[in-house]
Amino acid sequence: MPHVAALETTITPEDWSGALEIRAALDGRVVNDLVARYRDLAKEHLVPVETAAVDSDGILLKVRTSQSGVVIAQAARTRAFQGDQRVGETRPAFEEPRYVARDTDLEVAAGMPVRVEKVVALYTSRDRAISECGFEARTAIGRAGTFHELLQTHAVAWRHLGQMFDMELEIDADPVIPGNGALATSALVRLNIFHLLQTLSPHTKDLDVGVPARGLHGEAYRGHVFWDEIFVFPFLNLRMPEITRALLLYRYRRLGEARVAARAAGYRGAMFPWQSGSNGREETDRQFFNPRSGRWMEDHTYLQRHVGAAVAYNVWQYYEVTGDLEFLVDYGAEMLLDIARFWASAVTYNARLGRYEILGVMGPDEYHDRYPGADRPGVNNNAYTTVMAVWVLVRARAVLDILPDNVRQRLRDRLAITDQEIAEWDTISRRMRVVFHADGVLSQFEGYETLKEFDWEAYRQRYGRLYRLDFILEAEDDSTISYKLSKQPDVLMLFHLFSFEELKSLFERLRYPFDDQAIPRNINYYYPRGAHDSSLSRVADAWVLARADRRRSWDVFMEALLTDVADIQGGTTPEGIHLGAMAGTVDVLQRCYTGLELRGEVLRLQPRLPKPLGLLRLFVRYRGQSLAIELERDAMRVNALPCEAPSVRVAVNGETYEVAASESRAFVLK
Amino acid sequence: MPHVAALETTITPEDWSGALEIRAALDGRVVNDLVARYRDLAKEHLVPVETAAVDSDGILLKVRTSQSGVVIAQAARTRAFQGDQRVGETRPAFEEPRYVARDTDLEVAAGMPVRVEKVVALYTSRDRAISECGFEARTAIGRAGTFHELLQTHAVAWRHLGQMFDMELEIDADPVIPGNGALATSALVRLNIFHLLQTLSPHTKDLDVGVPARGLHGEAYRGHVFWDEIFVFPFLNLRMPEITRALLLYRYRRLGEARVAARAAGYRGAMFPWQSGSNGREETDRQFFNPRSGRWMEDHTYLQRHVGAAVAYNVWQYYEVTGDLEFLVDYGAEMLLDIARFWASAVTYNARLGRYEILGVMGPDEYHDRYPGADRPGVNNNAYTTVMAVWVLVRARAVLDILPDNVRQRLRDRLAITDQEIAEWDTISRRMRVVFHADGVLSQFEGYETLKEFDWEAYRQRYGRLYRLDFILEAEDDSTISYKLSKQPDVLMLFHLFSFEELKSLFERLRYPFDDQAIPRNINYYYPRGAHDSSLSRVADAWVLARADRRRSWDVFMEALLTDVADIQGGTTPEGIHLGAMAGTVDVLQRCYTGLELRGEVLRLQPRLPKPLGLLRLFVRYRGQSLAIELERDAMRVNALPCEAPSVRVAVNGETYEVAASESRAFVLK
Repeated sequence: MPHVAALETTITPEDWSGALEIRAALDGRVVNDLVARYRDLAKEHLVPVETAAVDSDGILLKVRTSQSGVVIAQAARTRAFQGDQRVGETRPAFEEPRYVARDTDLEVAAGMPVRVEKVVALYTSRDRAISECGFEARTAIGRAGTFHELLQTHAVAWRHLGQMFDMELEIDADPVIPGNGALATSALVRLNIFHLLQTLSPHTKDLDVGVPARGLHGEAYRGHVFWDEIFVFPFLNLRMPEITRALLLYRYRRLGEARVAARAAGYRGAMFPWQSGSNGREETDRQFFNPRSGRWMEDHTYLQRHVGAAVAYNVWQYYEVTGDLEFLVDYGAEMLLDIARFWASAVTYNARLGRYEILGVMGPDEYHDRYPGADRPGVNNNAYTTVMAVWVLVRARAVLDILPDNVRQRLRDRLAITDQEIAEWDTISRRMRVVFHADGVLSQFEGYETLKEFDWEAYRQRYGRLYRLDFILEAEDDSTISYKLSKQPDVLMLFHLFSFEELKSLFERLRYPFDDQAIPRNINYYYPRGAHDSSLSRVADAWVLARADRRRSWDVFMEALLTDVADIQGGTTPEGIHLGAMAGTVDVLQRCYTGLELRGEVLRLQPRLPKPLGLLRLFVRYRGQSLAIELERDAMRVNALPCEAPSVRVAVNGETYEVAASESRAFVLK
Repeated sequence: MPHVAALETTITPEDWSGALEIRAALDGRVVNDLVARYRDLAKEHLVPVETAAVDSDGILLKVRTSQSGVVIAQAARTRAFQGDQRVGETRPAFEEPRYVARDTDLEVAAGMPVRVEKVVALYTSRDRAISECGFEARTAIGRAGTFHELLQTHAVAWRHLGQMFDMELEIDADPVIPGNGALATSALVRLNIFHLLQTLSPHTKDLDVGVPARGLHGEAYRGHVFWDEIFVFPFLNLRMPEITRALLLYRYRRLGEARVAARAAGYRGAMFPWQSGSNGREETDRQFFNPRSGRWMEDHTYLQRHVGAAVAYNVWQYYEVTGDLEFLVDYGAEMLLDIARFWASAVTYNARLGRYEILGVMGPDEYHDRYPGADRPGVNNNAYTTVMAVWVLVRARAVLDILPDNVRQRLRDRLAITDQEIAEWDTISRRMRVVFHADGVLSQFEGYETLKEFDWEAYRQRYGRLYRLDFILEAEDDSTISYKLSKQPDVLMLFHLFSFEELKSLFERLRYPFDDQAIPRNINYYYPRGAHDSSLSRVADAWVLARADRRRSWDVFMEALLTDVADIQGGTTPEGIHLGAMAGTVDVLQRCYTGLELRGEVLRLQPRLPKPLGLLRLFVRYRGQSLAIELERDAMRVNALPCEAPSVRVAVNGETYEVAASESRAFVLK
């Protein structure tokens, strides 16, 4: 049940009898105070609206967020019991601005437990299907059942979530966390799924919410939405596409703001912001504080223009998994086209090379926000950004072809997309510039090859475990921008998002080489140069390593799995869990080790279980079918559950099969 | 563009020069005052929040609805031009509670036109993707283009809506409206479509809105939602199913309230209310005023329990048109099951007859809210209600079979639906009681046959055109309940909603006769006994008459088409258009004269163009395909537009064809 929370407290006086007073309060005086470095900033965000008593045992608190004006109403009902007997005398409410409480007087006897139920309902002025949020909160505590009844519905809901989102795995050994004893890997996987579902779940599919970087768990980044959805989306998309549809609608509602941002920056189409919140405008700070040096550093991360490409990528993934043409018609195609238009407007033609370039941007690696000595931020021809842009331009054309004739005409008319513009997208998508090192490695960006090698060993000796190299180097009056290192995967992200086949076709389109060794060559180059200073690093690393070195992939996967439970990112977990890392880690199991790819209306599987993993069992929803996949090292079973959906196409190691509902197929893996 | 409105006023001083002052205001002092009989009730619903000047030429008004606490912000920008030149001097804002204005001083010269642009933005605290509604309104007027630019986007939007929702027809003659000259029937059809789209459109698909009986056009019924969606839904469903999906979600969000209502009335499952608003609770008045007698009459219309059946029916229609299994999984099945459960709990077993009965309800005909002399409201075994309930019970079982195994198990678990309960639905759906007259006519309800015949002729002589027979009879100390008459189609609604084939199978299931003459027999009986005192009457009448007497159907259709333009419901149009009648009338063209039915994953066509109608051209969206249907009296063409959706099944007069994208098929009609 959304809106309702319940708490049961049992107090047993062991060797004492007498009067007991229980205070149940609703406190709106809470402040945002959990992140030390924000403590000097504004942290009071609630203004008082109303406090009141409700019936004989309830209280009501209404506050309003100070800037956005969202009214939040909570009502609470507190009841004490001895056995099945209501006991105690509830006093009148005690009210202060933003605080309301009610005391219950009890007579307790030694050895006689008293059970106290507190049931709270929360509604906001943003909720749908409400009269007024205070009214609904009052009504809800009046209607709510006993704690025990609420617990039962709660347990059923979680049991169902478990069935929908769980995966089972068997491994040869479990890791040992220092100080925590042995924890089963499965339990860690479930912990991640649990935290993911605390933020995004069936309850959020009718809300206007995005993917906040730290979930709803902490205050770091102030709840801002970055690009974490590219890590969070796939796991949910294959389980409950209604949730991912809602995430795409969150972006669709902010398409207008992204258009304004593009225009303001001199581009066309839609430019989604690096950090955003309520209304979708760019919220990235322009400075950040280095606690090591005590200096403010410039923040140019708003130049990460690749966010929109992630949105487009997810639109397409949603379509692949659902075949939901109506979604493309109503929302998806428009987003894809306007993102494509943005990229077409963001290129510069280099006449000398006969190639289009993307200048002055940032890739995912935040440690290279400009060239050494440059007075302007940004780097040129970031490979990740470029390949994503090419993919978007190709996909936008493909989507136009999928749409029914009349729908396409209207959409083109409304967005004023000319034949010439579409032809231009085609030209650009064939002649974009990607820079390679002399040895054929993809340059993270033009000029990366000329940067200095970083002396990892020396720094490790000097600083121990390296964390936030940007802070370390800036405090030494040096900078990460001068070195061949990265905060997190940048080129390697391409191997996370695309299969070899898909990349090969993109590079062929660009008339660049992309041979069988391209992926290992780049992994060998970039992996050792990664600082892993983003919680997202290990997810992408575990992913790309699975192609080359499964055992190492598993080790990195296990590290990723410990991100929050062992707080490996330097004490950042208390500021909020790392949602992208949590979901991305689970997705390594779901898509990477199964080799699951959605392409060309086929669910493709290319399993590669890493050594200690002996068995993996999971469910996916694909085009209306529920498929149970059971994977062992040398065998796989795909079980389509009975239903009335049409058969789907499943490819295993390149061979395609039609799988009808109720059908079971077994595969021997070599 | 949602949120923005614009007004251009051109003033040309013909023979005069001098100072001109233009006042542009935002006025939140408006009251609900348009319905005479509500004028003594509360009509002030807005409380002041803020007024302000915005920039050099703008104003801002914020008010809040007094009960529900919705904040409404409007910002306006006013600019005057001579030619392309901005002219005039804008004074500081003039502010009062709920009112803000700004004057512009102009020097005008004879023969020199001054053009004044007023651009207004409206946001509410319920809007999504906003920071704060006042902020968004201010921002929007700053960003909005010129009047001319806004007009262009507006025109494109309406052109597209035209393409999506239009239909073309050619008829032998056009009707003449007294005092209005000849108006083309097509124009009237478009007027209806226009008004429908003013209330429900692509702009509402992301809002939490239902189908208010009078659209957003007037204050009658206070914006309440009844069952009009059963008339409004089909036209939209076949054009833009995203809109109808949103209407179903509106109901889904209120499923909890419908469950509470069922429990409170002693039933199980979900009981949707006859009238509802914001949070979905029952809002039906318990009395209404008879202006003829000056007396208050009891209102028992809350006993129209059939609303939920209409919701269930629409869930199924949406699924038929889209094949959207995910919708069933996430929302649709749950609604259907809980509505089925309601009906199963609402029956009483009659051991003597070995049949289940539905006692103490009202059918759509509001002129029979109880038996003559009875001290309790409600009638027994209303045929419409019973058949709908049977259909729901059958459909709920079918939907369980469609769901994937695991989804079905979880849904049953969550709703605690036992095998026994499902078996019970089956039993009830085979043994429900429907009452027939001695001559085989369906009894509108048990005992209808014993009521008195109404002397229509005598009353017409006494009162002229009869309107609101309930008021007329009550003022004579008589009552409609004593007579064989109906306010609006009741039994006949069944022939509106179901084809002969579907009804035959339902009655066979119940082991009741339903022969080839059943429909004409009932039409002949009930049609002459209809008072047509609901605007919905003529829609259902035109529909059912099309099977028996096409020419008469056309005449009734033309009457229905004039409902609001000629205000034929006794002066009620100024209180708001009749949305159900408007949409339903268009739907007579779309589905009735084409014989369009969605059943068993087949789009069925059984055309029956009435005489004066020579050609009908329309588009429908069906399972991803866009189908252009062109219908003449003796021929029909179905054209599937190019797209990538799979082929669909289309049946013409009982013969089924696979129609692939880009395919064209011609049919000769006998």
